[in-house]
Amino acid sequence: MTVLVVGSVALDSVETPFGKADNVLGGSANFFAASASHLTPVQLVGVVGTDYPIDDLQALAKRGVDLAGLEQAEGASFRWRGRYRHDLNSAETLETHLGVFSHFRPKIPAQFRDAPFVFLANIDPRLQLEVLDQVKKPRLVACDTMNFWIESRRPELLELLTRVDLITLNDGEARQLTETSNLVKAARWILARGPKHVIIKKGEHGAFMFTEKTVFFAPAYPLEDVFDPTGAGDAFAGGFMGYLARTGDLSEPSLKRAVVYGSAMGSFAVERFSIQRFQEISREEIRARVKEFYRLVSFEEDLLS
Amino acid sequence: MTVLVVGSVALDSVETPFGKADNVLGGSANFFAASASHLTPVQLVGVVGTDYPIDDLQALAKRGVDLAGLEQAEGASFRWRGRYRHDLNSAETLETHLGVFSHFRPKIPAQFRDAPFVFLANIDPRLQLEVLDQVKKPRLVACDTMNFWIESRRPELLELLTRVDLITLNDGEARQLTETSNLVKAARWILARGPKHVIIKKGEHGAFMFTEKTVFFAPAYPLEDVFDPTGAGDAFAGGFMGYLARTGDLSEPSLKRAVVYGSAMGSFAVERFSIQRFQEISREEIRARVKEFYRLVSFEEDLLS
Repeated sequence: MTVLVVGSVALDSVETPFGKADNVLGGSANFFAASASHLTPVQLVGVVGTDYPIDDLQALAKRGVDLAGLEQAEGASFRWRGRYRHDLNSAETLETHLGVFSHFRPKIPAQFRDAPFVFLANIDPRLQLEVLDQVKKPRLVACDTMNFWIESRRPELLELLTRVDLITLNDGEARQLTETSNLVKAARWILARGPKHVIIKKGEHGAFMFTEKTVFFAPAYPLEDVFDPTGAGDAFAGGFMGYLARTGDLSEPSLKRAVVYGSAMGSFAVERFSIQRFQEISREEIRARVKEFYRLVSFEEDLLS
Repeated sequence: MTVLVVGSVALDSVETPFGKADNVLGGSANFFAASASHLTPVQLVGVVGTDYPIDDLQALAKRGVDLAGLEQAEGASFRWRGRYRHDLNSAETLETHLGVFSHFRPKIPAQFRDAPFVFLANIDPRLQLEVLDQVKKPRLVACDTMNFWIESRRPELLELLTRVDLITLNDGEARQLTETSNLVKAARWILARGPKHVIIKKGEHGAFMFTEKTVFFAPAYPLEDVFDPTGAGDAFAGGFMGYLARTGDLSEPSLKRAVVYGSAMGSFAVERFSIQRFQEISREEIRARVKEFYRLVSFEEDLLS
């Protein structure tokens, strides 16, 4: 089944202890689509300026990303420049130029409106709500958000929570949104406001999925070389939603496997700059990494006699 | 089978956002013994001063902790005073008085010398080496250490690495010892210097066990109320070694389960001050928590077709 993603399509300039890249493909929708398209067809909605290297997106199009919803508007594309220090845990933003993204009003093409899986990447909650007004009865709607919207669009974000099935956010955002330091309590707070599932991403420390009655955890894959953490969270979401859309199975065991696929795809994202690694990986490599996750956490139960 | 622990037996005064406790049982050997004794008989070697509330240790003795190696020396007991801020991630040490612990020279009683499992808790590596000179062919020797020894006793610590089967240390200590920020590389560095297994504890973010060819990970149990993190690492070691000593099984699957038992016992430690929780928990509660760990991380494999 198809997954629709609405989010940013940007140009990133990134510096890490291991090198730098200038004006490479970035933005939440790009990372999501690059990841999810390994698992299922993707429909992308976003906006770029007249300066965007549209041809570079052909690699995504070839792998089944439908770009019919990518608007090209008069003006400059969204550009982000950031730097990671040695610990790679948090990006230092050096420059943000929103460009045409600041006037973005997502228009979902008619042929995208019955997408069964919808991912509202990190954009203004007002726009996320506008997307929901345009789609017809998706089987699963998930959203992401960030500190800026939690602060500046709290009422809209709370409204959004009543209209999504699942939210992904990182630990800092979960604490900020709920004003609670304990993540279990933070998850309960969010679950009480609408979503049936809450995924709290902890970066290199893995991800929790909470439901009213269950908790599932997958670690981040222990890589020897983390090259550039940019986009890992969106690649996680792409793997997660991609797996669910591929199987069409929304049972609890399937959602757990989706978290593992998310973690696997997130681990690929950080091995190269931009979406580069997703241009290279094969079905066999994805399979091998999911197997490694299985070995990483699996144990046979032996209860005390 | 029996596990021998050599470490500190202290009096802790702890302040957390949830309360305070003064002069309660603390120290690595106490936490280890309180945890491990739920799984297997424990022999404890340590030193206390004339001011120590020896009677309070009777609860441990009743649960199978042999205190024949606990020396009482003229002088004051080891006392530590610390405080945790709201995030509970790191203790702020307010006072440390080593007292009789500063002259401690472990003397292993004759009847403890053939202990099949030995845990060298966090003490001076010179003393850890002295313990190894006194014991006869244990099946498994594990040690812990800390930043202070990594800095001040590096040669002795490196010698110790050649004589132990396993080391547990936290992520910061692993980075400090190996001068490497990546934990996979840090683990390889340590494995190359002797131990067959390295356990890197990440506090609330779980624990990795590395061998030359495998990696295993167990999360910390997601508790809604973490009361006092003191002693969690030693309780982890107690659960880990206790499980191995109980089963006598040193196979890889058994070592993985031991990490889970370690995580389960660590999760109990933080639910109350001091070793209090270990005075309460039943076999049934331990079993239930291990089951919850299984549910927390287990998923069925489904590889892409």
